[in-house]
Amino acid sequence: MEININRIKEDIENISKFNSTPEEGCTRFSFTPEDRLARDYLINEMKKIGLQITVDAIGNIRGRLEGRNPKGPSVLTGSHIDTVPHGGNFDGVLGVVAGLEILRTIVEKEIKHDNPIELIIFIEEEGCNFGTPMAGSKALTGMISWQELKQLVNSSGVSIYDAAKRFGLQPDKLQDFLLNPSEIKAMLELHVEQSVVLENSKTSVGIVERIAGVRRLEVIFEGVSNHAGATPMNLRQDPLAAASKIIAAIDGIVERKAYNTTVATVGKIDCYPNVINVIPEKILFTVDIRDVNSKGMDIVELEIRAMVDEVTKTYSVKSELRITGEAPAIQLSPHIVSIIEESAKSKKIQSLKMNSGATHDACILSRITDVGMIFVPSIGGRSHVPEESTKYEDIKDGVEILLEAILKLANE
Amino acid sequence: MEININRIKEDIENISKFNSTPEEGCTRFSFTPEDRLARDYLINEMKKIGLQITVDAIGNIRGRLEGRNPKGPSVLTGSHIDTVPHGGNFDGVLGVVAGLEILRTIVEKEIKHDNPIELIIFIEEEGCNFGTPMAGSKALTGMISWQELKQLVNSSGVSIYDAAKRFGLQPDKLQDFLLNPSEIKAMLELHVEQSVVLENSKTSVGIVERIAGVRRLEVIFEGVSNHAGATPMNLRQDPLAAASKIIAAIDGIVERKAYNTTVATVGKIDCYPNVINVIPEKILFTVDIRDVNSKGMDIVELEIRAMVDEVTKTYSVKSELRITGEAPAIQLSPHIVSIIEESAKSKKIQSLKMNSGATHDACILSRITDVGMIFVPSIGGRSHVPEESTKYEDIKDGVEILLEAILKLANE
Repeated sequence: MEININRIKEDIENISKFNSTPEEGCTRFSFTPEDRLARDYLINEMKKIGLQITVDAIGNIRGRLEGRNPKGPSVLTGSHIDTVPHGGNFDGVLGVVAGLEILRTIVEKEIKHDNPIELIIFIEEEGCNFGTPMAGSKALTGMISWQELKQLVNSSGVSIYDAAKRFGLQPDKLQDFLLNPSEIKAMLELHVEQSVVLENSKTSVGIVERIAGVRRLEVIFEGVSNHAGATPMNLRQDPLAAASKIIAAIDGIVERKAYNTTVATVGKIDCYPNVINVIPEKILFTVDIRDVNSKGMDIVELEIRAMVDEVTKTYSVKSELRITGEAPAIQLSPHIVSIIEESAKSKKIQSLKMNSGATHDACILSRITDVGMIFVPSIGGRSHVPEESTKYEDIKDGVEILLEAILKLANE
Repeated sequence: MEININRIKEDIENISKFNSTPEEGCTRFSFTPEDRLARDYLINEMKKIGLQITVDAIGNIRGRLEGRNPKGPSVLTGSHIDTVPHGGNFDGVLGVVAGLEILRTIVEKEIKHDNPIELIIFIEEEGCNFGTPMAGSKALTGMISWQELKQLVNSSGVSIYDAAKRFGLQPDKLQDFLLNPSEIKAMLELHVEQSVVLENSKTSVGIVERIAGVRRLEVIFEGVSNHAGATPMNLRQDPLAAASKIIAAIDGIVERKAYNTTVATVGKIDCYPNVINVIPEKILFTVDIRDVNSKGMDIVELEIRAMVDEVTKTYSVKSELRITGEAPAIQLSPHIVSIIEESAKSKKIQSLKMNSGATHDACILSRITDVGMIFVPSIGGRSHVPEESTKYEDIKDGVEILLEAILKLANE
């Protein structure tokens, strides 16, 4: 069963144009004009093949293709179309257009299947604007209520609730669209790997067994701002000196005290007032800790807490450490792992069982249904950057294995 | 000879209202509407006492009071009225209104003097907008040409030249207003100490002997941005991990390897793209190094250079270190130091000879004339912050000593 890789390429290229930062990577936040254009494009493509389209209260899009058994539980496949700021064209979008191409292939080749197959496009996966990743899939599975959507605000003070409303959605009707576990058979997501495991092993397809959990910390140090020239070193209460001690220690903590599956990243640091000749008043930084083994996250968090307490005293500053987000590690369905494995074997494509360091909407769906994930290699392991890319020959392998696996699940 | 401290208080309070960030400290950048209002207020006050006013090509204001010898060299006194972002009401402004009050006193009490006495209000001292401190006094003394004013741009791409032009000035006529050393007898500046030396020694007046030099470094690390979850620790090229190693080491370098007069501050750090779940691509930070002994600055700079080279290798990042500004340490005029000391003694006010960690317009003027500086205590040593303050009883002591010293110099 072959898919048409050129159509996938066209879809990727077309969607990449819906971008608020042309020439500086792709930025497409949910509920923006760029998002609207990408959604309209996809809905139009879905209509062309006769999918039955639903847009839920927060903006997740579902396109359903009936099978011989309309009452059977659906096999879902898809991903998201929002991006990080200045990101790439493949993260999320690839899983969406892979699902679209699979449904086109099934429709055009009139491939028989029992259960319905659905393309699902989640809204607001990255969480870079409103601070909460996977808000779309969380809302769809009842993990976030419409009232809570009012609390998730961006830096301009706009909540997801307000943004959705202004976008023409009805977020207070969230309850009417909740996924009913009995109506779902499985969820399969194809995604770029975002690392170099596949590239290094020269394998075109990864089969995800476990997804790392994530714990996000926000650390604030407040000191005493003062003139950079006139204040002797021993009279300073410099919050950046304090913060830098923690940030500088994090890689060592992870490498020496945690596991080889543990990672921790300081991606964001804000300095106030951020002026060359003024000792800073306040520093905020974030730590994103991930591991398939939650003990690894515990170790890093505890070490950071201990260091924060220590430098708070050493530098006579005030400090605050809070957990701003957390998701547990996920074990994906062993049944689906073996179905994907068989599909790869039957197509004579080499695959590799692996873990995912990144979190995905599939993790959220695993709370209510069996979930599987297929990875395709990221060139140079780059992701969340303008250079993010995947070879189309690898994409073809991944999408064809996904098609096989979906059909097997739809006929079980 | 008494001055009227209430008028100084009124001047400070009136000028503090010309502020672009009310309730969040005082922000008054040069060439802004706030600056215009403060200038108009001061020019009006100067006109009330009959000063002969000149505004030069870049916006420095001079107000001249003739003495018995109009051909004699002038004794200048003054400071600046621009501020850092969210700064206080005393840095700079106090030296200006002190000079104004001294001239009011001389005019009202008809105090005889030989040489002219001038109030001078420098524009653009802080350098927080256009990146170059003391641009006004540098232009006035020929250290910056009008062509160079076009190269000094702020973050919006506007140069000092353009800003001055839009403000109604004629920066290309700079040459016509250069200070002529033979026409200047001396420059005296009263300023807040911006540290705690005077407060700790319970002394109301400091006499500055040396002013620390300053060297400003900008360090840039460029790494490889990537997904925070999917990239194993050993495959990262994280520029913030690299930068934090340097920033964390700076206080130790200063305290263990340099002198007790040396200070170094990282006041500014910019992270790109600054997103919680993305390994940063690029970090820029600044280091402001100061010492009355230039060897102290050399030591810190060399140690930082060595560390930058080291972490550039360790973290497989690219790095760049450049000196963005430099001013040598200054020895003030011993003759003026002794005149100020005598003035304090004659008024039975305790004074303290000291160094200045901060740089001032007086440093620039020291290239062409004899310079003296008087410090008054900063409450809690705080400066460049909204809380910046000085007791009016201390100000009165400082201004009366300044008046005595100015009259002595004007009659020499």
